[in-house]
Amino acid sequence: MIINNEKFRTIWPNDAKNLNAITVSIIDQTKLPHAFEIVEISNLQNMVNAIKTMQVRGAPLIGAAAAYGMALAMQKNTNEAHIQQSANALIQSRPTAVNLRWAVERMTKLLLLTAAESRLEASWLEASHICNEDVLLNQAIGQHGLTLIKSLHAKTPRQLNILTHCNAGWLATVDFGTALAPIYAAHEAGLDVHVWVDETRPRNQGASLTAWELAQHGVPHTVICDNAGGHLMQQGQVDMVIVGADRVTSTGDVCNKIGTYLKALAAFDNQVSFYAAVPSPTIDWTIHDGVQEIEIEERDGRELTWMSGVLANGELAEVNILPPNTQVANPAFDVTPARLVTGIITEHGVFTPNALKERK
Amino acid sequence: MIINNEKFRTIWPNDAKNLNAITVSIIDQTKLPHAFEIVEISNLQNMVNAIKTMQVRGAPLIGAAAAYGMALAMQKNTNEAHIQQSANALIQSRPTAVNLRWAVERMTKLLLLTAAESRLEASWLEASHICNEDVLLNQAIGQHGLTLIKSLHAKTPRQLNILTHCNAGWLATVDFGTALAPIYAAHEAGLDVHVWVDETRPRNQGASLTAWELAQHGVPHTVICDNAGGHLMQQGQVDMVIVGADRVTSTGDVCNKIGTYLKALAAFDNQVSFYAAVPSPTIDWTIHDGVQEIEIEERDGRELTWMSGVLANGELAEVNILPPNTQVANPAFDVTPARLVTGIITEHGVFTPNALKERK
Repeated sequence: MIINNEKFRTIWPNDAKNLNAITVSIIDQTKLPHAFEIVEISNLQNMVNAIKTMQVRGAPLIGAAAAYGMALAMQKNTNEAHIQQSANALIQSRPTAVNLRWAVERMTKLLLLTAAESRLEASWLEASHICNEDVLLNQAIGQHGLTLIKSLHAKTPRQLNILTHCNAGWLATVDFGTALAPIYAAHEAGLDVHVWVDETRPRNQGASLTAWELAQHGVPHTVICDNAGGHLMQQGQVDMVIVGADRVTSTGDVCNKIGTYLKALAAFDNQVSFYAAVPSPTIDWTIHDGVQEIEIEERDGRELTWMSGVLANGELAEVNILPPNTQVANPAFDVTPARLVTGIITEHGVFTPNALKERK
Repeated sequence: MIINNEKFRTIWPNDAKNLNAITVSIIDQTKLPHAFEIVEISNLQNMVNAIKTMQVRGAPLIGAAAAYGMALAMQKNTNEAHIQQSANALIQSRPTAVNLRWAVERMTKLLLLTAAESRLEASWLEASHICNEDVLLNQAIGQHGLTLIKSLHAKTPRQLNILTHCNAGWLATVDFGTALAPIYAAHEAGLDVHVWVDETRPRNQGASLTAWELAQHGVPHTVICDNAGGHLMQQGQVDMVIVGADRVTSTGDVCNKIGTYLKALAAFDNQVSFYAAVPSPTIDWTIHDGVQEIEIEERDGRELTWMSGVLANGELAEVNILPPNTQVANPAFDVTPARLVTGIITEHGVFTPNALKERK
């Protein structure tokens, strides 16, 4: 995707003649949209921290970052104990993200099958494969989603309003995005799409990331507070909801950023179709009841208390918006039951929750 | 209610020997929770501005403020044309609030029936009646709500978790509040109640006002983002929802701060009872279909773009949280259809939407 007219991915290795000296660059997403900063990561611990502090975020990108984390770990030591320790450190950095575990397990499996002296090279290659595959998956998701948007447009030949929650755009992946991939594909295809961007408290990923990347790409969009979507749907101003997901169960329950469930309820109540767009590794075939079985990460209350932005003079700053010593709770995700989900858009096509169950 | 151990109302006239010199004091609610500032209002235009800028907000308090606005207007001129002009200026300051129109019409009717030379005195008296009546109404709402909470507690004898959205506490009224009146009454009665306080974007009235007034009064509470309520309900962590309302239709539709509809959907989906607590003047008997008929105020996008709070050094500041030139939409209210409403708590008792229709 394009930033200031230059092509970028969200994560990339910096070429070095020596495999032991390769570093990995990421875009510091905690600074967006106010500053565009690239951070160079040179060891496992820094990658774990980048995942924990959400400098990289979004399920697919976390997977890619973890894969590169394993490669950085191999620079230190390629023995089995170190492989396992590194894998554990990465998996524990964000408990909800199933792609993270998937990527780490894929790396671990390959490394354990590879001779110790080839592990460093193999890890850089495999991490790069994971990234390239993500890009291809997302392009395929975009095309399947485009088919849905085209058929909606055939029925409703005017500007289409698509609501999205959080950021599942290219910033959440290696490139193209998941939930936004169909929107970018529709925009490229010349369809008139407009995006309602949920602010997405408490981390404001919609206001700060989705709005930013849509603007960079020239897609018309309007930011709304998380409270507004239901009203807009009641008033016929939303034609479709597309969100990403951190995990989808085998039965079609969608675990995504907190607040997604509320939008799905409103979509259902107003006969607006509700889709989650995910690469198939996001589907957790071991889980049947998302509400009962998925552990929901409780994140630092500071995310709610402090709000970052720019002062009128352009300086970055954080303000505390609560009375002193206020108790807060900050569950990071919720689960949308399959009964509210129209379909799951994957690289293999679009599946209703029932079709997903059968496919299992 | 109590602020720093001192008894306060939200609005009061400052005694003056001369009726022409009385001013009205309000608490500047745009400064809370970071600063507690009292503003003295000495003419109609300043009262209109205080209502527009939400230095005073909350349907019942706006009504009281408008009544005092009429009294201040009478200091200038008591002729009929001026009465009508002043009434119009006040009514136009916040189009959605039905109490505002109700209070202004009550004042206007009385003033037109009163001889011109007595209008100034009559207006101060009537404004003071409106305030005292509001306090009595809210105490009655508190007692009727307390009965509901007691019966819930009899079935669920543990700490009760009550979720509220926006601020319909004593800061939204002259005293006691509407949605929070039952909670204060339960707390006074020794029941163990804990309040989930929705942050309530875009103006953060929950985070800044509800949390502040509950803290001043010692009621246990936890602030959550607006996105979290659905998840908490799914997890059995909400026993009841009580909100205020800016308008309730004759059929039981509830027009309240944007996002209320989403909480009502989640409450319905999880068999959690959902109440709106309002004084009866908030019921608009002329409206039958809230979703179709109520004009929703679109407020300044700045409310979404700029976030106010305190910097780490304690200084008040505003930060811009969006990318430059981002388009925003800011509908201030939504309508919760009666089918999602368990009951309307009024000073006359608790009514299901059907009972309300019959009462009409």
